[in-house]
Amino acid sequence: MKKLLSVSLAGVLSLGISMSANAVSQEDAIEYRQAVMEVIAWNFGQMGAVMKGKIRFDAQAFAKRAGNVAFLSQLSLEGFIFGSYEGETDARQAIERNWDHFKAKMAQFQEESAKLAEVAKTAKTRREVGLQFLKTAKTCKGCHRRYKRR
Amino acid sequence: MKKLLSVSLAGVLSLGISMSANAVSQEDAIEYRQAVMEVIAWNFGQMGAVMKGKIRFDAQAFAKRAGNVAFLSQLSLEGFIFGSYEGETDARQAIERNWDHFKAKMAQFQEESAKLAEVAKTAKTRREVGLQFLKTAKTCKGCHRRYKRR
Repeated sequence: MKKLLSVSLAGVLSLGISMSANAVSQEDAIEYRQAVMEVIAWNFGQMGAVMKGKIRFDAQAFAKRAGNVAFLSQLSLEGFIFGSYEGETDARQAIERNWDHFKAKMAQFQEESAKLAEVAKTAKTRREVGLQFLKTAKTCKGCHRRYKRR
Repeated sequence: MKKLLSVSLAGVLSLGISMSANAVSQEDAIEYRQAVMEVIAWNFGQMGAVMKGKIRFDAQAFAKRAGNVAFLSQLSLEGFIFGSYEGETDARQAIERNWDHFKAKMAQFQEESAKLAEVAKTAKTRREVGLQFLKTAKTCKGCHRRYKRR
């Protein structure tokens, strides 16, 4: 992860970058999608802690987390490139074999997280976001069960 | 990175999560900010490849990348928590000693990347985004030089 960061940022800044949309390496794609998922997990985890009562519900903060997840849900798909299901990845080869199904599951996550962000905008209590939070969480779980190792 | 992802997502889904806004571990904070920076680097790198002529300029795609970076620029700051400048990190202790300066540098990055996203919305040529792209890249470099190892 750090390697990609230094290579690509340093590369850009010196205008010596070699990464291109047509020639992204499988390793870079894996690290990219893992990074996106990790940023999602952090924000989702904070909302989860609110739902469990471990963090006080703060409407503005919760809405921000929900907005973050909705935005980020749009980013990871481009990291699931052909041939990137071996090596340092928990993503299963099944993704490639069932690409349309995988994309549909991703679209569900995007839809439910967009709804969560919408609901959170006006919610004044934890109760008001609870159902949509769980619906969103289910889309994570539903996809991971089939397409993620462990 | 993968560890955080599985721990926190699995935790949320089983409602067994222990992460809280008040009790984020230094290791988790480091991994979070690195993940944010990596997602930024990916998107920035793609724009850099366009600027170098390695990828054809596509107004819509470029605007999306610029929007991604502007959004993501808002996320990493919360990962720079107290005491998280040792171990698996390239972030220097100087961040803690010069917190206000570091925050100001981060704000510059946020501002310039927001401007880039704005310019990119209506740009029809690579030329039109060039100057603001370089201004944004300078805010990365300016901060990394002082606060990032290597």
